[in-house]
Amino acid sequence: MNIRTANIPPEGITTDEFLGRVAKVRSALDKAGLVGLLAFGDCWRGANISYFTEFRPLDGVSDIANAILLLSVDGDPVLFVSDQCFDYATSVTAFEVRSLREVAQQVQAFSARHGSGTVGLAGAAYIPADLLQRLNAGLGKLKLEPTMVLAEIKAIKSDAEVALMRKAAALTDSAMAAIRDALADGRPYTERELALIADRAMLAGGAERTAFDSMVQSGPRSAYNLARPTDRILQPGDLIMTDIGARYRGYVADGGRGFTYGPASPEKTAIVAAAARAVEAGLAAARPGMAAMELNAVIQQALVKSNYEQYSSEARGHGTGHGTGMDPEEEAPWIGPGNRTVLQENMVFTLKATITVPNVGGLRTERIVRLTSGGVETLDQFPMELHW
Amino acid sequence: MNIRTANIPPEGITTDEFLGRVAKVRSALDKAGLVGLLAFGDCWRGANISYFTEFRPLDGVSDIANAILLLSVDGDPVLFVSDQCFDYATSVTAFEVRSLREVAQQVQAFSARHGSGTVGLAGAAYIPADLLQRLNAGLGKLKLEPTMVLAEIKAIKSDAEVALMRKAAALTDSAMAAIRDALADGRPYTERELALIADRAMLAGGAERTAFDSMVQSGPRSAYNLARPTDRILQPGDLIMTDIGARYRGYVADGGRGFTYGPASPEKTAIVAAAARAVEAGLAAARPGMAAMELNAVIQQALVKSNYEQYSSEARGHGTGHGTGMDPEEEAPWIGPGNRTVLQENMVFTLKATITVPNVGGLRTERIVRLTSGGVETLDQFPMELHW
Repeated sequence: MNIRTANIPPEGITTDEFLGRVAKVRSALDKAGLVGLLAFGDCWRGANISYFTEFRPLDGVSDIANAILLLSVDGDPVLFVSDQCFDYATSVTAFEVRSLREVAQQVQAFSARHGSGTVGLAGAAYIPADLLQRLNAGLGKLKLEPTMVLAEIKAIKSDAEVALMRKAAALTDSAMAAIRDALADGRPYTERELALIADRAMLAGGAERTAFDSMVQSGPRSAYNLARPTDRILQPGDLIMTDIGARYRGYVADGGRGFTYGPASPEKTAIVAAAARAVEAGLAAARPGMAAMELNAVIQQALVKSNYEQYSSEARGHGTGHGTGMDPEEEAPWIGPGNRTVLQENMVFTLKATITVPNVGGLRTERIVRLTSGGVETLDQFPMELHW
Repeated sequence: MNIRTANIPPEGITTDEFLGRVAKVRSALDKAGLVGLLAFGDCWRGANISYFTEFRPLDGVSDIANAILLLSVDGDPVLFVSDQCFDYATSVTAFEVRSLREVAQQVQAFSARHGSGTVGLAGAAYIPADLLQRLNAGLGKLKLEPTMVLAEIKAIKSDAEVALMRKAAALTDSAMAAIRDALADGRPYTERELALIADRAMLAGGAERTAFDSMVQSGPRSAYNLARPTDRILQPGDLIMTDIGARYRGYVADGGRGFTYGPASPEKTAIVAAAARAVEAGLAAARPGMAAMELNAVIQQALVKSNYEQYSSEARGHGTGHGTGMDPEEEAPWIGPGNRTVLQENMVFTLKATITVPNVGGLRTERIVRLTSGGVETLDQFPMELHW
């Protein structure tokens, strides 16, 4: 392999770690009976690419937003990026970089070498139709099928990755503290203002950016599962839902907390408590060796027993956690019904409980955990039962 | 049409304006011989959706990131979003909202009503393969073809839109001022630190977020067309490239400036001047009634004459500007060779010149302009020839 010394930031991932990952994935492809991997990542969902190189595509409506990694079970990886990103990608990648203009032709050459067999596709849920068509054009007799091989390998985080995620989680905690401190001054705040206060706190602490657009929803709007902030002013007695995360270098945090604002009804206080109890049950139960579906059942059943079943998507079986790391949402491990994936030490994922009662309010309590030999390390530290 | 009063922010777009746009697009579809429109937008490239509603999808690897608008030439629009975004979308949209789970079935019902004909697809360059497959599944005898009808209508901005873009451009100017002020203290700064200073300045001024990840590239890295910032410390004598933009409510700015840092060689000073002269030529020439290719030729020829032809992608015919507004890059108008689109009053687009000399450095000078009856209004005001 033609290895160059990439420009690695001091707190980042070393070239050796990147190259070790290439070897690990190649061996897993072989075991899975695949002749190779086509991994897609874009500017915003970049984990399939960022696992192998510090390169991340740029914002845009064209190929500048896209990247493909082609990895053969028996050859060196090739990274495909737009012409405009070529010099940048070359400067931070320890293996060959080519233009996306050549991707169909290079897949064709790969097909000519391998004859037949199946190539795994990572990122099948969000690869653009136009780019998939270009890959298909070169496949020849090879089959292309979605694979979880890469997702399952990158679900297990290294010490270097966990250190970056701890930092991202601490920055996210600081955003919640900034919201708390702002509200202590007694002045009226809108949802948008609080989201901005959270964002400013993360950047002030050294976050590279927000991991995603911060959500702050108040009063009846806190009963929407996902929403962007508006100019609604917080009213005493409101329930508030927040979903906030920081990006620190290549890694992110995805955290959620809700709180009551001012004098709160017993019903609203109970909603906050029920979500906290459900997540606590998951934190207490999580162990390496469990199936993801078993851990999901613990949180799901706690929500069912809390009498909020009809108001909780997690209680209704939509899953109680997901992988996280380089992207806010990574495909594995999905903590949900029917998923027999065995949880392993150093997997990092969220555990969450959302309760949304129409016309009353709601919240999502979402923690980030690393599985340890005997249980979990929570990467975020902010308390879960908040009344401000 | 079942019109509800949406929750419109004071500086934003009114429900009447949103509904007027629906009528305008419907009429243009009819003229273009299309029976309807399927418009795709995601969390990051949302203009095809944001043109009709304040709703913007959320960050994710699933349908929460996606939205589809189905518009018939003779019926009301329907917005399709994920279940998790449904309540939020309903609360800010003046027409029917449905779940993306139903999109194939609804396209099928549309097909049953229309029999045959062609439906235009907006966002064909970046719609996910998985979602396109679901649309195709319902099409029946209808044909689906990429269309520029929506892109060309939304290229012309209203007064309300231009006001929001002026604000976004002013916030972007403030980021450049913050970089200048930081450098004045004489201490060493890394590219990442300067990008963070720019981001903090935009949020401090009230930006909703950055429009895209800020680019700051120094020394030899300033000769990369597009790149993310690193830990490289600026060195006296460097050329610096920046590409920065703010988002203010639904609208963005996309600006670029470069500068020399400390004592600069005549060659580097000449690069900054050549880019400024080329963009100035475009600003002076731009008029309603011109073809986009004619305006492109003015900047392209200025770059060719400057002797940097081989180091400038714009000089080599890759286009000297693009639409902007709700997304940093919008498809129309593209200011490039061969584009016969006639430029019209109140079109908003960028005009740019990139010069990148390997091992020396480079910059991109990019302005945001609105076409007026007699020429251009520049929405950003920061000077173009900078030596700090």
